[in-house]
Amino acid sequence: MKKTEKFAIGVDLGGTNIKIGVVTDSGKIAEKIVVDTNAELGPKAVIAQIKKGIEKVYPKKKSSIKGIGIGSPGVVSAEKGTVENPPNLPGWTKVNLRKVLEKEFNTNVFVENDANAAAIGELVFGAGKKLNSFLLVTLGTGVGCGIVFERKIFGGEHGGAGELGHTTIDHNGKKCNCGSVGCIEAYIGNNYLVCSVKEEIVNHKNSAIWNIIDNNLDLLTPKSICDAIALDDAYAKSIVADIGEKLGHSFASAANLLDISSVIIGGGVSGFGKPLFDAIAEAMKARVLKPLQSRVKILPAKLKNEAGIKGASALVFYK
Amino acid sequence: MKKTEKFAIGVDLGGTNIKIGVVTDSGKIAEKIVVDTNAELGPKAVIAQIKKGIEKVYPKKKSSIKGIGIGSPGVVSAEKGTVENPPNLPGWTKVNLRKVLEKEFNTNVFVENDANAAAIGELVFGAGKKLNSFLLVTLGTGVGCGIVFERKIFGGEHGGAGELGHTTIDHNGKKCNCGSVGCIEAYIGNNYLVCSVKEEIVNHKNSAIWNIIDNNLDLLTPKSICDAIALDDAYAKSIVADIGEKLGHSFASAANLLDISSVIIGGGVSGFGKPLFDAIAEAMKARVLKPLQSRVKILPAKLKNEAGIKGASALVFYK
Repeated sequence: MKKTEKFAIGVDLGGTNIKIGVVTDSGKIAEKIVVDTNAELGPKAVIAQIKKGIEKVYPKKKSSIKGIGIGSPGVVSAEKGTVENPPNLPGWTKVNLRKVLEKEFNTNVFVENDANAAAIGELVFGAGKKLNSFLLVTLGTGVGCGIVFERKIFGGEHGGAGELGHTTIDHNGKKCNCGSVGCIEAYIGNNYLVCSVKEEIVNHKNSAIWNIIDNNLDLLTPKSICDAIALDDAYAKSIVADIGEKLGHSFASAANLLDISSVIIGGGVSGFGKPLFDAIAEAMKARVLKPLQSRVKILPAKLKNEAGIKGASALVFYK
Repeated sequence: MKKTEKFAIGVDLGGTNIKIGVVTDSGKIAEKIVVDTNAELGPKAVIAQIKKGIEKVYPKKKSSIKGIGIGSPGVVSAEKGTVENPPNLPGWTKVNLRKVLEKEFNTNVFVENDANAAAIGELVFGAGKKLNSFLLVTLGTGVGCGIVFERKIFGGEHGGAGELGHTTIDHNGKKCNCGSVGCIEAYIGNNYLVCSVKEEIVNHKNSAIWNIIDNNLDLLTPKSICDAIALDDAYAKSIVADIGEKLGHSFASAANLLDISSVIIGGGVSGFGKPLFDAIAEAMKARVLKPLQSRVKILPAKLKNEAGIKGASALVFYK
């Protein structure tokens, strides 16, 4: 570690494991560790794991650490430092993570919802460095979103804003696990996407995807589609065009409502690359109100695999 | 006018006429005038009409006036006081209304988009007095919306936020005049609504609406539907249930994205009253994410016919 550099600890709290890293103020990871979450043992056990992990990476020269940032699932009050009912973390109800960790480590602690932490990560270290306002949309199992407005998180009344995944594109369309209908997540969330491709692919006997998955539909993942695109497979390309169109329509509604016209896209499905980004931009431009058309920007996220740790650490540098 | 009261002048700039009023700080209209807009004569002529109108109501005791507020169509920069390309006001391009009027009247001038001014009106004088955050949705020719977040207008990047009317409920649905598809406005904006009822009503020969419109479809307006509801007409009630459902679905998406769960509803169609409000609330609650369900509030706007003048004057008291 260089003497002049400042460091923050970023904690990416997940249902299966906790990723913890020491990150420089230029966004480089100096140390990194992954520990089991032990979610099934309840909040005390999980907090013990967080502490253990932080201790292992905590540098000897404590003064170089500016603070600890935590990206957590669930409803997070950044102001209070509390985490409520995180899915996949049973028994949490409401935990003041900031209080617990400030006491333990005697440093500043910042807690944010993981989607918002990822957005702050792009703002501080990534594709949002030069943007004042943008949506950071993460395409994975769900469709996560953090809203950055004038270089701050727009959290809404209770810190829950950004549920773009649960805005409808067809109010008479597909059922979503959230209980609503036609949510964009119900079309392009990984599981939904894989399900619908499994249904459709029987009509595309010549698709390269069959070969990639060894004719075994159980092996189908978004990556199979990605691999087939590399082989210029027509069906795979049509899937990506369709995802892009739906996302573009969804983003157009959000942009009209928010007057925010830049979208940074990360997560697994963003691996579809340029064909996806082009399709999104085309569909979004065709649907936003006239004054927004020339301002639409679709950008790939810059923080890839370590977005969780870096985003969490960015909470410290950003404050 | 009582000595202790403070006054503001509210200017409701429309394409056909300009409504100008002197409003007390408790939201009562002390003086009121309506002048022709003379829109076809261009911005100079319109500004001359605004000045003329203000002069007529301007009280002799100038010190009692705290300022002038203007609600204008088009893209408004509240910060700069400019109005850009207001529809129905040809030749405007960009006009700094604040500069012109501050010079003329030597008082504070505040300019806002008319949908946002209406929202501030409800915040200061109406149904939003006790709310921190809400959407003010105006149901008329279009579906207007102003977003109030933490007792301020959320204007987005360029002051254009709040275009809820152009968020989609069916991305493969009805074409909207804006160029997009499935916008909520394309279903329930007055003209669209009247059009679709004209098409459907031929299948409802027994509807009381026929009698109300003298069997002449050219006479059909939203008010005809309203009158039929008063007669307990089944078809009219089904129209309102359908409008309520679509609005509820649209508001649910907005609430999920913004984490704002109170909606105040004004404008002509809101005259459908309780059946409409109940249908909206039911549909919205069924579609928002779990943490929002118990927080959903659908309230009628309190500023009725003079919402324009009062909203504009509220810009002054609110600052």
